[in-house]
Amino acid sequence: MGKSRSGGLLGTMKRIESSVWFQGFIISIIIVAALTVGAKTYSLPYGVELGINYLDNFITVFFLVELSLRFIACDDKRRFLKDPWNLFDSVIVIGSLIPISDTDMILVARLLRVFRVLRLVSVIPDLRYLINALLKAIPKMGYIALLMFIIFYLFAAVGSIFFNEVNETLWGDIAISMLTLFRVATFEDWTDVMYETMEVYPMSWIFYIIFIFLTAFVFLNMMVGVVLDVMTRETAEKEQENQDNHHHALVAQISDLQAQVARLSDKIDSQNDKPK
Amino acid sequence: MGKSRSGGLLGTMKRIESSVWFQGFIISIIIVAALTVGAKTYSLPYGVELGINYLDNFITVFFLVELSLRFIACDDKRRFLKDPWNLFDSVIVIGSLIPISDTDMILVARLLRVFRVLRLVSVIPDLRYLINALLKAIPKMGYIALLMFIIFYLFAAVGSIFFNEVNETLWGDIAISMLTLFRVATFEDWTDVMYETMEVYPMSWIFYIIFIFLTAFVFLNMMVGVVLDVMTRETAEKEQENQDNHHHALVAQISDLQAQVARLSDKIDSQNDKPK
Amino acid sequence: MGKSRSGGLLGTMKRIESSVWFQGFIISIIIVAALTVGAKTYSLPYGVELGINYLDNFITVFFLVELSLRFIACDDKRRFLKDPWNLFDSVIVIGSLIPISDTDMILVARLLRVFRVLRLVSVIPDLRYLINALLKAIPKMGYIALLMFIIFYLFAAVGSIFFNEVNETLWGDIAISMLTLFRVATFEDWTDVMYETMEVYPMSWIFYIIFIFLTAFVFLNMMVGVVLDVMTRETAEKEQENQDNHHHALVAQISDLQAQVARLSDKIDSQNDKPK
Amino acid sequence: MGKSRSGGLLGTMKRIESSVWFQGFIISIIIVAALTVGAKTYSLPYGVELGINYLDNFITVFFLVELSLRFIACDDKRRFLKDPWNLFDSVIVIGSLIPISDTDMILVARLLRVFRVLRLVSVIPDLRYLINALLKAIPKMGYIALLMFIIFYLFAAVGSIFFNEVNETLWGDIAISMLTLFRVATFEDWTDVMYETMEVYPMSWIFYIIFIFLTAFVFLNMMVGVVLDVMTRETAEKEQENQDNHHHALVAQISDLQAQVARLSDKIDSQNDKPK
Repeated sequence: MGKSRSGGLLGTMKRIESSVWFQGFIISIIIVAALTVGAKTYSLPYGVELGINYLDNFITVFFLVELSLRFIACDDKRRFLKDPWNLFDSVIVIGSLIPISDTDMILVARLLRVFRVLRLVSVIPDLRYLINALLKAIPKMGYIALLMFIIFYLFAAVGSIFFNEVNETLWGDIAISMLTLFRVATFEDWTDVMYETMEVYPMSWIFYIIFIFLTAFVFLNMMVGVVLDVMTRETAEKEQENQDNHHHALVAQISDLQAQVARLSDKIDSQNDKPK
Repeated sequence: MGKSRSGGLLGTMKRIESSVWFQGFIISIIIVAALTVGAKTYSLPYGVELGINYLDNFITVFFLVELSLRFIACDDKRRFLKDPWNLFDSVIVIGSLIPISDTDMILVARLLRVFRVLRLVSVIPDLRYLINALLKAIPKMGYIALLMFIIFYLFAAVGSIFFNEVNETLWGDIAISMLTLFRVATFEDWTDVMYETMEVYPMSWIFYIIFIFLTAFVFLNMMVGVVLDVMTRETAEKEQENQDNHHHALVAQISDLQAQVARLSDKIDSQNDKPK
Repeated sequence: MGKSRSGGLLGTMKRIESSVWFQGFIISIIIVAALTVGAKTYSLPYGVELGINYLDNFITVFFLVELSLRFIACDDKRRFLKDPWNLFDSVIVIGSLIPISDTDMILVARLLRVFRVLRLVSVIPDLRYLINALLKAIPKMGYIALLMFIIFYLFAAVGSIFFNEVNETLWGDIAISMLTLFRVATFEDWTDVMYETMEVYPMSWIFYIIFIFLTAFVFLNMMVGVVLDVMTRETAEKEQENQDNHHHALVAQISDLQAQVARLSDKIDSQNDKPK
Repeated sequence: MGKSRSGGLLGTMKRIESSVWFQGFIISIIIVAALTVGAKTYSLPYGVELGINYLDNFITVFFLVELSLRFIACDDKRRFLKDPWNLFDSVIVIGSLIPISDTDMILVARLLRVFRVLRLVSVIPDLRYLINALLKAIPKMGYIALLMFIIFYLFAAVGSIFFNEVNETLWGDIAISMLTLFRVATFEDWTDVMYETMEVYPMSWIFYIIFIFLTAFVFLNMMVGVVLDVMTRETAEKEQENQDNHHHALVAQISDLQAQVARLSDKIDSQNDKPK
């Protein structure tokens, strides 16, 4: 009886967990959580701030309850723990649970609560699907990203060897030089950087022009690569499906015809046999 | 007789309304309206300004007459009111009718007349078609725009928590921080923003680099998505049509062949019957 | 005999005109002309400048002779004059012939000689072909360019109504406002423009954000349109050709089969007739 | 016996050279070489710098040994020397061998060691393949790059004729003008350049707008060209293959059917013969 009761409770929990109503409720709670995050960046009267803190604690508890509910309602506990989205949720929920009294750590505590906004991604299935699709595009760009890094590293090394004495803030070491080159790649006041080094090395514009062309060229190819990758996956599949459908229809029809001719052949055979 | 007369008048109105000549006339009036809007931004001698004001009033009346004419000439009044382009026209025409004597509201009055330029879009069918096509592309970008907003919101929250004390004008609250991040996303003097926060948090370049990469990556995917969406709609349809045409031609031809074989089969049957 | 002699001369001229050797020679003369244009921008010693002036005059004469030669060698004078590339050449060659002694007009004279560099485009067939292809892409963008212009005009009108008093140099009249908006559209120090107006109208960031989004969105669609246009023209044609070839091969094969069955049918008919 | 022994040695060398273990070892040595290049841009204590110098010399020797090993292990010495990647490796390895004691040349020596980072590209097959693919895309862009250069040259000539007196640092001669125009094309503080010349030539904004539109338009087309080129090569091939497979399957099936009908025809012939 206890078992059946617990089963009834489990069933109720499952029904609650999977209802559209509950999903919408969670989404609104996350949006409220996001709004409190935003509200805290304004200087508010003490009363409002206190209210927001209570709301914040309520949201922390609510998220914990919701996660527990989902864990209990799930039949396959192992699969639940293996799903990266559940792990992601757990880290965010447990992260905002850690009680931080130390005033130094107040920034970290606030930061952890900011990440609760990300639960929007794990709760809305379309967003989860979108993120999965974006992540799939990354490995294809691996080698081109490595090539980009080599170009940056090489030019940063050359830059910090030659321009080190011109401007130490921009070309002091290889890390700073890479940041400066990233700035050049985004065209952000890049001529200021160039004009400065051109005063010492008048031909240094060649360095910048080659760097910009190389970066733009490789980036362009990366972009084309991503476009192509997605296209071959999505468009081609649909088209191929259409083609395959047509093909199979034709094959089936011709097979029918072959059977028809075979039956005709049998008839003629039987005709030949009869006269005997 | 009265009825037939009014029918004749309605017929004349319809003929006028749908004539190319009348369409061209409306377009030129709208262009004149647009020019008066532009002319008013220059400081003009009193006489010219007065003339422009008279012209402006004439255009207001003309637009009202034209809209009424179109409404009367339309057979299905309900469909006329349901067409968003007609509603758009009505709002613009009626908006510029409101008499504003208050000197404070003079800016609003001028603004309302500026929007009459938009009637070019509703009058030229190709532009109307183009706008419809552009609007269709928006929902497909919905979730990716939401994701983009979440990224901006999250980074703005983190930014206003950490950089608030560095520069209150740029990172004061979450709204200002989002504007600052939009500036960073357009690469507009973003290094100035970064160098400033790097003086307090030397590792804050990581914040900017990750933000730029995330934004660029998601934006790239949005662009690819739009390209793909339009392509699958337009190109694939044409191709599919071609394939479908070919397919149906083949199916019809093979069906003919099947009928031919069937007739042959009947002949053999009748041959088998005859000898009996 | 005079006729045959002139014919011989014409033949020689035609042979010269169409020889690869002569084409290469013209290209090198144009490159020399381009180099003299470039050299003149440097301050040179008097002797060199004099030499360049003589070279310049020689090139002017050479171009005139070459154009005349091509005109005479051409059989169909009317088609020669109708070809836009020949008209283009003639304008450039005749333009640089005009003797300008007036010191005021010296800039115009130099400008006209600069345009001789453009003859490279009309002389190299691949470049001519490329330009033709680029020109073909323009009309397809017509309506979207018109829409872009309407957006700029509208925002410029609104901008010069509201921001006129904030900064007259940027928002003085509608023409200056359009230039300022073009600057905003290229993200060039656009936040400086925005921060300035935000001091008077704190919500004016909405104006800029909407403008940037609209412009970027319409531009993106224009880009997609161009890509699509070129693609449907080039890629689809090739694929369709392949599909059409396959289709016709199948149709022919099935027609063969139909003929075969028809012959079979005839045979059975004749068999049926025989026993009679 | 000596021969067999040397054969054994060669065999061992070949086995070593082609082992995954050895490949991984070379890659890690190159990464160490890259790190020493980066480390040298920091100011380090004397002991560490000395250690890095020893490491550097060790890497130089290691690269020489590795290259020799690969050369000896290669059966076809001629093909080894013809492979551009091996030449590339040899130049880098031999380049860093040159002993430079002259203090003036210390920068060149350091530069040569920087290029050892590029060996990553020649050692990792996927990167080598990527570079080959990128190089293939270049010739297709040849004429459009030439056109771009002509546009830059023409506008630079016009710019240095008219704006020379406005600002000699930006428009002094045609080379400097081209650099300024490249800056304008990247939208880098281009309005500063424009506002300066507009003070003398108020209509000079036309020059910049036309230049920006031309450059953007040609660049857009170049981008589309590259996308198209890669796409027709990769996507279309796959699709065509699918179509070809389908086509051949249909042709084979119909041929079977034809053979079947032919056999039927033979049967009827033999039937016709029998009664005789």
